[in-house]
Amino acid sequence: MYQDRIRHAGLMSKVMPAQEAAQLFRNGMTVGMSGFTRAGDAKAMPAALAERAGHEPLRLTLITGASLGNGSDGLMAEAGLLARRLPFQSDATLRGKINAGEVMFIDQHLSETAEHLRSHSIAPVDIAVIEATAIAEDGSIVPTMSVGNSVTFVQQARQVIVEINLSTPLALEGLHDIYTPADRPLRAPIPLVGPQQRIGTTTIAIDPARIAAIVITDSPDSPSTNLPPDAETGAIAGHVIAFFESEVKAGRMSAELLPLQAGIGTIANAVLHGLIGSPFSNMTMFSEVLQDSAIALLDSGQLAFASASSITLSSAMHDKFMRDIEHYRSKIVLRPQEISNHPEIVRRLGIIALNTALEFDLYGNVNSTHVGGTRMMNGIGGSGDFARNGHLSMFISKSVAKNGGISSVVPMVTHVDHTEHDVDILVTEWGLADLRGLAPRERAPLIIERCAHPDYRPQLRAYFEEACRGGGHTPHVLEKALSWHVRYQSSQTMLAS
Amino acid sequence: MYQDRIRHAGLMSKVMPAQEAAQLFRNGMTVGMSGFTRAGDAKAMPAALAERAGHEPLRLTLITGASLGNGSDGLMAEAGLLARRLPFQSDATLRGKINAGEVMFIDQHLSETAEHLRSHSIAPVDIAVIEATAIAEDGSIVPTMSVGNSVTFVQQARQVIVEINLSTPLALEGLHDIYTPADRPLRAPIPLVGPQQRIGTTTIAIDPARIAAIVITDSPDSPSTNLPPDAETGAIAGHVIAFFESEVKAGRMSAELLPLQAGIGTIANAVLHGLIGSPFSNMTMFSEVLQDSAIALLDSGQLAFASASSITLSSAMHDKFMRDIEHYRSKIVLRPQEISNHPEIVRRLGIIALNTALEFDLYGNVNSTHVGGTRMMNGIGGSGDFARNGHLSMFISKSVAKNGGISSVVPMVTHVDHTEHDVDILVTEWGLADLRGLAPRERAPLIIERCAHPDYRPQLRAYFEEACRGGGHTPHVLEKALSWHVRYQSSQTMLAS
Repeated sequence: MYQDRIRHAGLMSKVMPAQEAAQLFRNGMTVGMSGFTRAGDAKAMPAALAERAGHEPLRLTLITGASLGNGSDGLMAEAGLLARRLPFQSDATLRGKINAGEVMFIDQHLSETAEHLRSHSIAPVDIAVIEATAIAEDGSIVPTMSVGNSVTFVQQARQVIVEINLSTPLALEGLHDIYTPADRPLRAPIPLVGPQQRIGTTTIAIDPARIAAIVITDSPDSPSTNLPPDAETGAIAGHVIAFFESEVKAGRMSAELLPLQAGIGTIANAVLHGLIGSPFSNMTMFSEVLQDSAIALLDSGQLAFASASSITLSSAMHDKFMRDIEHYRSKIVLRPQEISNHPEIVRRLGIIALNTALEFDLYGNVNSTHVGGTRMMNGIGGSGDFARNGHLSMFISKSVAKNGGISSVVPMVTHVDHTEHDVDILVTEWGLADLRGLAPRERAPLIIERCAHPDYRPQLRAYFEEACRGGGHTPHVLEKALSWHVRYQSSQTMLAS
Repeated sequence: MYQDRIRHAGLMSKVMPAQEAAQLFRNGMTVGMSGFTRAGDAKAMPAALAERAGHEPLRLTLITGASLGNGSDGLMAEAGLLARRLPFQSDATLRGKINAGEVMFIDQHLSETAEHLRSHSIAPVDIAVIEATAIAEDGSIVPTMSVGNSVTFVQQARQVIVEINLSTPLALEGLHDIYTPADRPLRAPIPLVGPQQRIGTTTIAIDPARIAAIVITDSPDSPSTNLPPDAETGAIAGHVIAFFESEVKAGRMSAELLPLQAGIGTIANAVLHGLIGSPFSNMTMFSEVLQDSAIALLDSGQLAFASASSITLSSAMHDKFMRDIEHYRSKIVLRPQEISNHPEIVRRLGIIALNTALEFDLYGNVNSTHVGGTRMMNGIGGSGDFARNGHLSMFISKSVAKNGGISSVVPMVTHVDHTEHDVDILVTEWGLADLRGLAPRERAPLIIERCAHPDYRPQLRAYFEEACRGGGHTPHVLEKALSWHVRYQSSQTMLAS
């Protein structure tokens, strides 16, 4: 029964099968799809488009909020549908095609894609595909579990396909806050001054005449794949909490802290879980994604409010959230990712940004994206939006990977996503390095002794000492700076024999 | 005659020689001094402090707006006065001490130092030394040719030393617009929506009781050291103008463009000079520094208004500016660097950012600071504030240096100040590469063929081809990625023999 979800009578006639809606697409088009961290993505259209691409030439530029669920990115990549993909992904099949040079991937700060579209710095969206809970009386769209870039897609696309997902409760309506900055040069300040404030509408406005198709689905979002906390993530959480306590004690923050952001994934989720039972209360989040930990912190009473662009939960937490949606809706707001990640707001509110590093170097440069400097993992996501502009920029990582064969602390990172200028705090299970106000030569010993795995500390010390003999503000031995990664390629360990 | 410049009668008794004011300082203090791109810096106190440090232990942390003139940084470094220095410098002697590890230099985004002080993320300022045109009736300070971080220093310091510079015309009063964001978590939007708007006061407020000393000087600012435009900067300007024309033609900007920012130095100044006689009119600047080119563009009638944090001119242009100050004061405003470079404003206004690169790589990563990856040149300055958040992020460089021994286009930069995520356009005298919406594998051929010096193109093509055989989203050969810089160290050329 979808009829009660299409409250604009004139649109009822637009309901059609996904296969029929897929006929609207032309080879070479740019398509904007809803979906952010595997939440609120269209479920039927990716499969229908992949099927069409299997038997006729159809290659598209696909823009989303962030990663899609349901294996959709892999399905579309496998079918050869994706010529170009932005701004983020996390699918193994698509990743393989990106690294083989078969799909052109543009790895963008998640706050910026909407600006690039609005200013026509990249090709405009031809068709938007938006998952919805419902269509309101005026034709406007009620999003599901993410907002992402859907507002910009809807504003720009010539045609919009709405996927109504019957598995989402109607009570999601009211969860969203839709606000769009005006075109330059006539843009006003964004009036948001706190995570809990609402500045927009609850639905995405659209002229109903541009809704070209309505497709009905009932597949749920893919559940979170986060691993449970372990000893190392527990140790990282402990260091982070001790640091927050020392900041509060020094008078630099109140016990409410400042609004928290935490990146997608196991480690950031585990660290937030660690805040349960900590001495902080009445906290807020201003993040791009809410994971299980955010709901658990709302339940513990320590988190007063959470603002984000998407909600990505495990199956169990998803069920609980949907059961108590009326309760959670008063404590959560979902915004366009342009707003959730906006430099203006991140700087104004003074966000504490907690993001995961693949590796970092002696001087605090962080690689978030490229394995061995060449192979894309997922993308920078929103980490740069928050790390550059927040009050505190923290990067967390386990000290080693691949059974100790890879050290997360290296002489020089093979790819830089966050420069030394943007990194305040580094944390591994061994400890926390507070880099604020320190020169590169002061950062290195601290990072080695606090963050590196003990097995790698002698090598790091030796590198730093040799580099210092050569001089320079940021000492390096260029011949050896990347030698750890080269060694790993040949002998599956960064440890010198 | 300084009496007419101290309009608060109670402060007249605070006038004293610089040597006497220098006795207020204690070993280990943090000192904030006015001065930004060699404009508006205190002239007498640095020399008096250096003299004291010559015969007794006196080591300080020195924070400024940006670089100081008059050889002050060198004098203070030589005397051993500087234990720690932030956030920018451009002095040969100080640079040597930084690279020798004798002065700890913290290289910061110029918009962020005020935030770090306000949040006590770094040690607070004990004493502020501020160059002034005059002291008003209420004790408030009229700045000179820069605002920099002076407002934050004055707000935080326990004691303030004012250096009244008799060489500055009293008509500078009214040039400045002083606005400070409130402490978090109670910060409101910054109400600035256009370069010409004024949102604050014309003087820096202070309780007169905190003015501990007034020193009288009459030394002018150091003149700009910019070289005149040459054939290569002319060619760069030509490419930039042609690009702007194509953007206007494509409907992405009006012929007024969007507000321009240009970095300090010869190349950016020459490119702006190139806009004289271009088809653009009613332009504005929202920059951190105004050089000769900005005044020339005001004179040509093409620039309607210029907002910055400092004015740094050649001697001839300085004389002209001071003669016609009443005229220019209606077309220029000087703001705190926190506001001139603020991410909130840069993003809102959609700045076109023109900054100089030391080197950039095949994928668009930019090194602005470190020669050979280790030796600090000046610092990142405000380039990151503008490049990250503006509408267009352009980096310009001559294609070679050291008589062709150094290529500015390299396989991998030795230090990253601006990541591929933040770089839209690269320009050398050979051409312009528009990287918007391109994946790394698409960027490389464009950068090689448009920007690299022809002598280096075969080597770059060979590197890229070999790297692509290894695969990856961002192909590299780690063993060879930094080999060009290593070769230069041994044979004074990056050219393979």
